[in-house]
Amino acid sequence: MSATLHEGIHMSTMLPAGFRLAVAEAAFRKAGRNDLALALSDGPAAAAGLFTTNKFKAAPVLVGQDLLRMSKTARAVLINSGQANACTGEEGLLRCRQTLKKTASLLGIDPCDILPASTGVIGAQLVMEAWDRTLPELPEKLGKASLEDFASAIMTSDAFPKYAGATLDFAGKKVVVAGVAKGAGMICPNMATMLSVVFCDAETDPEDWRAMFKRATDASFNRVSVDDDTSTNDTLYGLANGASGVKVSGAGLRVLEDAMVRVLKDLAYMLVKDGEGATKVLHIRVSGAADDADAERAARTVGRSQLVKTAMYGKDANWGRVVCALGRSGAAFRPEDVAFSLCGVELFRRGGPTDLDFDALLKDALEQRDVYLDLRLGEGPGEYLLLTSDLSHEYVSINSDYRS
Amino acid sequence: MSATLHEGIHMSTMLPAGFRLAVAEAAFRKAGRNDLALALSDGPAAAAGLFTTNKFKAAPVLVGQDLLRMSKTARAVLINSGQANACTGEEGLLRCRQTLKKTASLLGIDPCDILPASTGVIGAQLVMEAWDRTLPELPEKLGKASLEDFASAIMTSDAFPKYAGATLDFAGKKVVVAGVAKGAGMICPNMATMLSVVFCDAETDPEDWRAMFKRATDASFNRVSVDDDTSTNDTLYGLANGASGVKVSGAGLRVLEDAMVRVLKDLAYMLVKDGEGATKVLHIRVSGAADDADAERAARTVGRSQLVKTAMYGKDANWGRVVCALGRSGAAFRPEDVAFSLCGVELFRRGGPTDLDFDALLKDALEQRDVYLDLRLGEGPGEYLLLTSDLSHEYVSINSDYRS
Repeated sequence: MSATLHEGIHMSTMLPAGFRLAVAEAAFRKAGRNDLALALSDGPAAAAGLFTTNKFKAAPVLVGQDLLRMSKTARAVLINSGQANACTGEEGLLRCRQTLKKTASLLGIDPCDILPASTGVIGAQLVMEAWDRTLPELPEKLGKASLEDFASAIMTSDAFPKYAGATLDFAGKKVVVAGVAKGAGMICPNMATMLSVVFCDAETDPEDWRAMFKRATDASFNRVSVDDDTSTNDTLYGLANGASGVKVSGAGLRVLEDAMVRVLKDLAYMLVKDGEGATKVLHIRVSGAADDADAERAARTVGRSQLVKTAMYGKDANWGRVVCALGRSGAAFRPEDVAFSLCGVELFRRGGPTDLDFDALLKDALEQRDVYLDLRLGEGPGEYLLLTSDLSHEYVSINSDYRS
Repeated sequence: MSATLHEGIHMSTMLPAGFRLAVAEAAFRKAGRNDLALALSDGPAAAAGLFTTNKFKAAPVLVGQDLLRMSKTARAVLINSGQANACTGEEGLLRCRQTLKKTASLLGIDPCDILPASTGVIGAQLVMEAWDRTLPELPEKLGKASLEDFASAIMTSDAFPKYAGATLDFAGKKVVVAGVAKGAGMICPNMATMLSVVFCDAETDPEDWRAMFKRATDASFNRVSVDDDTSTNDTLYGLANGASGVKVSGAGLRVLEDAMVRVLKDLAYMLVKDGEGATKVLHIRVSGAADDADAERAARTVGRSQLVKTAMYGKDANWGRVVCALGRSGAAFRPEDVAFSLCGVELFRRGGPTDLDFDALLKDALEQRDVYLDLRLGEGPGEYLLLTSDLSHEYVSINSDYRS
C-alpha cells in the first residue's frame, strides 16, 4: 500500500490548493525588485515553525515562536527582504507586531494568524513608511504571484530563486506539497536556511504535521552547510490547510513525509549550489561509523575544513587533507580501517594511499559541479550524508565587500 | 623577589649554552634550500614533547611519543622538511627509526636520545637515499648554524623563519631560553604549530620542565588559530640541558615559565602573522563570561567564522557577523548584556548597535595589521584571548593551487 502510494509522488512546482501569494516592491534596501511577500491560506492551516538556535534571535523569530506557542494553526506568512530586524531590541519587536497588525487589518484576519520572517541587514529598525506605503497593495495582488515570484521576493544575495514541489496521488485524489527557500550566506549546521516556507493542501492533525516537519527538516536542511554559520533570522515555516479535501493520517503520513523530504532535499541542494561563491556541491558521505552521531561528526569536520573546501575548488584530489580532517573530528575509528574514495576512485585504504594514478582517473570528475567524497570508517552501522560547498575566491570577494 | 627576577627577563635570540645546531640540504622535496636540521645538546637534557591530537599521527610523532615515554631526557632533535612521513604505515615507522639510528651512529650517541619530527607532503615514504647522502654532513656542520638557520630549514610554505628567545638573570647568572617554530598552514586549536623546538640551558627537574612546558604551551600556541586544522605532524619539543650551571627550582620555576611563555607567545604571534594568505592578526578577547571555558568557546567560534574573517580582510566594521557568531557559540550570556568593541570603538551595546559613526572612527584602525575585537558577555570572571588570521583571496589561491 505504502509502496503504491510512493509511486504516486511526482515532482512539480504547482502551488497547493487554497493558497494565494502576493509580492510587492517596498524598496526596503534598494529599489527595482520585489522585496515583500505574502502567502495567505483561504482557511486555517496546521502551522509548524523551526527557528535559529542563535542566542541573538531577530524580532520576527521571537514573534513567530510566540505565535506558534499560542496556536497550532495560522493563516498567512509575511516576509520582507532587505532588513533583518535583528539586534533591534524592544522597538524591533514593536515594529514587527505593527506590520502584522496592519496586514491583518487589510486582509480582515487576526494578526495572531500571520507568521513573520525577515532577512537582510542586521541592526537597523524597520522603516515603517515603506511598509505603510506598500502593504495596501498586497490584498489586490493576492493570487497573482507564483511560487517563483514568492521565492524571488525573499532573496538577498541569492543568485536564483529556489522553489520545489511534489504532487501525491492518494487513491485518486491529489495532494500538493511545495516550498520556497532563500539562502546563500550564513548557511549553518542547524537550520541550514535563512528562510523557507512549505505549503501543503493536505489536512493533517497539527501535532502530526509539526512532528513530520521537524523530521523532514532534520533529513534535509539540517544536512547541508555552506559556511557553518547560523544566522539571527533562520526560519522555516510549514502550513497545511486541508484544501485538497484529503485527510492524511496513519500510513499516509509516511508517504506525505517522504514527499516533503524530497521537496526539502531539492531546496537544500539548491541552497548549497547557490552558496556564496560556490563552484561545487560536495556530497560528503561517511559510513561504517560506530553510530550516526559519529558519522555526522566526521562529515561535518571534513565539510567545515577550509583546506578540504579550497582543495575541491582547486580540483585537487588531496586525500591528505580529507583524512587529516577526519583524524581530528573526534569520531571513533582505527586509522588502518579507513578508506576514502573521491568520485568512486579509492585514494586511501588501510592507513595509506592507494597506488592509483588518481590525477588521470579523476581529471574529468573533478571538473563537474557535483563531487562525491566517501569515507568508510570501519564496519559500524553509523552513516551520514552532508552537502556543502567549496571555498572560492568569489566567496572571499562577496564577503569582504559586503557592507555591515 | 619574583618581581625582581621578572625585571631580569630580556628578549634576545641567542642560542642557550650547550646546544649546537646544524642544517643541510637533502633536497627532500626540492633543491636550493636547507631542509634538514639537527640540534645537539652537549649533555642529557630534560625533554618534553607535545603532539597532535589527530588520530592519523605521522611516524615521527608515534616514535617521538614512544621515546619520551621511555626516557625523561634526550640529546638531540632531528627535523626534516618536505616529507611528512604521515600515512606511511609500518614502513614509515621503520624508515623514521632508520634515520635516527644513522644519525646516532654518526654522532656517537644512543638513537633513543634523538627526537624526530617531519613536515611536508603526506603519504609518501621517506627517500632514504637523500638521508644517506646528507646525514654524514651534519657532524662537521654542528655549531655553524644559528637559530635563524634552524628555523629556516624547517619551513615549508612559511614566508619567514620564526625564532625568539629571552635571557634571564638569576642572581647574576644568565639563563637562556629560545625557540623556533614553523607554521603557515594547518594551524589548529590544539597544538597550533606544526613544529616547534624550545631550547633552554637551565637545569630543571624533568617533571617540573614537562609541567611548565605544557602550561606555557596552553598559554601561547594553544591560543592561536589560522584555519582551525590540526595536522598529522604537529610536534613541540622542549630541551633543558643545564649548561648554564643554574639550577632552577621553587620560585625560580615561575620566572623561567614567564620567560618561556613570552618566547612562545612571540612565536605564536609569528605563526598567525604568517598564516597562509593572512593580511591581519585578529586579537579576539572575550571577557565577563561565566568561566574561562565559556570565554574560549565564544572566542573560538568568532575566530573560526569565515564571515568574520572575510569582513576583517575587507576592513569592514561588521559587528553583526561578530555578534551572530557569538550567538551560536553555545556560550552562556544574556543578549542584552553583550558589548562589542572593535579597536577600542564600541559598536554594540545592550543588544543593539551604538550610534557612533564607526566607519569614520575606524578607518585608520582597520588598515593596520593588528585588529582588536573585544567582546564583553556580562559580569562573570571568565576571559580568553585568541589570536587568529583573516581569510583572504591569497589563502584561497595558496590552498587551491597546492598539490596533494
